Amino acid sequence: MTELFYLTAVEQLALLRSRDISAVELLEAHLDRIDRVNPSVNAIVTLVQERALAQARRLDDDAVRGRWHGPLHGLPVAHKDLVDTAGIRTTYGSRLFADHVPVTDALLVRRMREAGAITIGKTNTPEFGTGSHTVNEVFGATRNPYDLTRSAGGSSGGAAAALASGMISLADGSDMGGSLRNPASFCNITGLRPTPGRVPAPSDTAAWFTLPVSGPMARTVGDLALLMSVIAGYDAAVPMGPLDDGSEFAAPLDADLTGLRVAWSPDLGGLPVDPATAEATATAPEVLEKLGARVERVDLDLSDADEAFRTYRAWWYVLSFGELPEEQLTDNVRWNLARGREVTAADLARAERLRSGLFARMAEFFRNHDMLIAPVSQVPPFPVDKPYVDEINGVALPDYLAWMRSAYWISVLHSPAASVPCGFTPGGLPVGVQIVGRPYADLDVLRVAHAYEHATGFGTRRPALPGA
Amino acid sequence: MTELFYLTAVEQLALLRSRDISAVELLEAHLDRIDRVNPSVNAIVTLVQERALAQARRLDDDAVRGRWHGPLHGLPVAHKDLVDTAGIRTTYGSRLFADHVPVTDALLVRRMREAGAITIGKTNTPEFGTGSHTVNEVFGATRNPYDLTRSAGGSSGGAAAALASGMISLADGSDMGGSLRNPASFCNITGLRPTPGRVPAPSDTAAWFTLPVSGPMARTVGDLALLMSVIAGYDAAVPMGPLDDGSEFAAPLDADLTGLRVAWSPDLGGLPVDPATAEATATAPEVLEKLGARVERVDLDLSDADEAFRTYRAWWYVLSFGELPEEQLTDNVRWNLARGREVTAADLARAERLRSGLFARMAEFFRNHDMLIAPVSQVPPFPVDKPYVDEINGVALPDYLAWMRSAYWISVLHSPAASVPCGFTPGGLPVGVQIVGRPYADLDVLRVAHAYEHATGFGTRRPALPGA
Repeated sequence: MTELFYLTAVEQLALLRSRDISAVELLEAHLDRIDRVNPSVNAIVTLVQERALAQARRLDDDAVRGRWHGPLHGLPVAHKDLVDTAGIRTTYGSRLFADHVPVTDALLVRRMREAGAITIGKTNTPEFGTGSHTVNEVFGATRNPYDLTRSAGGSSGGAAAALASGMISLADGSDMGGSLRNPASFCNITGLRPTPGRVPAPSDTAAWFTLPVSGPMARTVGDLALLMSVIAGYDAAVPMGPLDDGSEFAAPLDADLTGLRVAWSPDLGGLPVDPATAEATATAPEVLEKLGARVERVDLDLSDADEAFRTYRAWWYVLSFGELPEEQLTDNVRWNLARGREVTAADLARAERLRSGLFARMAEFFRNHDMLIAPVSQVPPFPVDKPYVDEINGVALPDYLAWMRSAYWISVLHSPAASVPCGFTPGGLPVGVQIVGRPYADLDVLRVAHAYEHATGFGTRRPALPGA
Repeated sequence: MTELFYLTAVEQLALLRSRDISAVELLEAHLDRIDRVNPSVNAIVTLVQERALAQARRLDDDAVRGRWHGPLHGLPVAHKDLVDTAGIRTTYGSRLFADHVPVTDALLVRRMREAGAITIGKTNTPEFGTGSHTVNEVFGATRNPYDLTRSAGGSSGGAAAALASGMISLADGSDMGGSLRNPASFCNITGLRPTPGRVPAPSDTAAWFTLPVSGPMARTVGDLALLMSVIAGYDAAVPMGPLDDGSEFAAPLDADLTGLRVAWSPDLGGLPVDPATAEATATAPEVLEKLGARVERVDLDLSDADEAFRTYRAWWYVLSFGELPEEQLTDNVRWNLARGREVTAADLARAERLRSGLFARMAEFFRNHDMLIAPVSQVPPFPVDKPYVDEINGVALPDYLAWMRSAYWISVLHSPAASVPCGFTPGGLPVGVQIVGRPYADLDVLRVAHAYEHATGFGTRRPALPGA
């Protein structure tokens, strides 16, 4: 029988709702699990045990009185250490904010709490979410539960590792260049990069900048949808729509994929891919065909996304962090700031033209294809003491960003993109497949991911952890 | 009795629908009107009479067979010369494109045609829509129907003047810094700057740039809503939502304004306003109070909008027109390009911060206020041979943009804003009031504008035109 902490969030909530377990019991099962496995994984970096217990007791009392707070009533969750949590230390993975305690909750934290979730703590992230490898000077590195010598990916690596090792069943993350997808693929869990605007993240410094998005992470696609139903939906604090609430994500995910027009790109147009990753992801077309989809291998050219992403990202770093004392920042952030200081307004104009042209071509592409599938990451989890991947399949990479192209090129498209487990390397490391839909087709993406997950079952293989 | 060409679009369509008139008859009434008044107003700069007549005959034939094409079946319309019309000369008001004939229709042109509208031609605009005064080297100046020695405003000045003088009853326009509102206020008609994204305008060069929007112009607010019901609604060729179609705009506009919380700003926070404009707009609070609204005079500080708008606008000019042969462009476009070449990435970052902070403050503002009302333009229509307004109420203005602040500051807010007639100067020149709502509250703005229009009736006073 599955341990309580490895049930899905949907299953845990059903037990809470039927009063087979209490919120305190569910919390204690998770706290116990954290006690045993977090020391080796280092996924949860701030734990607010007493506060969580007090909240669990209140929720249990309310449940006894018939007062249910919302769809997450009594569920323990953790928030990425990039999102503000009122009264709970929020470091952004930066020494500069090692003792920072915000006074207000981020919108998604508020929405989760109002839905009845219990915050147990914060999940690790690289400094300001910089890079797809979770290590920082405040808390050190998060390790991959499937191989503790390997990276958990990033920047939502703490969330992914915590989910994979049963410390929580639901977590938020964020994604500018792959941060909800790379760690999901590295840790054999699921993540959704929503269409920009679907999960509003108010900003009083870059409100119109659509590359970074917040989104859900979980062990199953059903749980992703559950969290989307809570955190998605328009808020007047952001300029951009869509205007609908998140209720569509509460609909059943079961769908008939017969006739679905799927485009399959094993390398997103010429990107180097590690052979083990290539082999695992190459099974994806057959899985979808067996589900009734019509899969066509396509030659894509997304290369314009590269300059567009790098230019806007670099500019955003200066906009967001350009006034911090640089000598106290880590190398990757400083590298981004240096790139950002080189960016000119003409570069930004060129970037806007490149992404606009690419968007127009992809709008055409999505007239003939319902989904695009591709590897999430170009490599399996790499050694945890390596700062980044500098070579793939014999191709040397120029900088720390280059290995993440399979994820960040997709970010430029304004499309929803899910990461779902699609197998393991011969060495037992997880590999994920990326399912990309039309802008705003987030629910369709989840439905395909859900069918994929059920057809394969890779996501149910648990890591062997010391202390567990 | 009102002449056929001065009926509202809604009334004209009712006569078509009941077969009291034919599309050919309605078209001929407008073509005759154009013959008589356009020579003095110069609003319609390209006329496609034969094509329009052929289309009217086809629509009449289809109507006889019971086939109605849509809500605009048989209605003559004209498109701003900035939007592409397949097979019809589209100059963008520029000598460089004096003989340009696009091969495809802009999305809104297609939507209007598919709804049964008959394109009769193109309306005048300054070069690339630059400035709120409609004059260019291809077609010369558009004159104000209420005083032919005065400007019709701009950049949708051709549309506004054509509507005011009965050449058409419905037209599209566009607005980055006031171009749907200033000409409406100058010509005693109505215009709506929709929330960005409401009326999608696909761009393969600046798809994420939300300052310029397309929108409707008409003699009545009911007609604005009619056109919105046709041109609003999501299209996959643009990245941003909202996702709904335009059907909400087909709902009745009648609304009870009792208790509506209206903020009244006579000068939008210290802008100079011409005394005659100030006097006419000062009647607005009482009109709204009589309708049941609670009007509160507010002190606003929108000044951060100034730098944000100027920086993004200048950058966009270089992005859009920076590769054209500059010596063939007119002064205002060259001035914008020169400003754009001075813009740095750091300026753009500062602009993003300024507008994001302002948006956050206005989101708070709109928690306590349902609508903001203010003057549309700071001046009444000025002499047509003046390139722009260089002084208001004794305050000297630094450049050709400065007199449009009351309109372009609002553009930065991502809010819908309507212009409705609110009176005349002692010299008989029209003045408009600006009704600004929360982002995406376009329909609410139209409802308030509709109530305002019915309570006052200024929009029914017609100009006295030679030849008419």
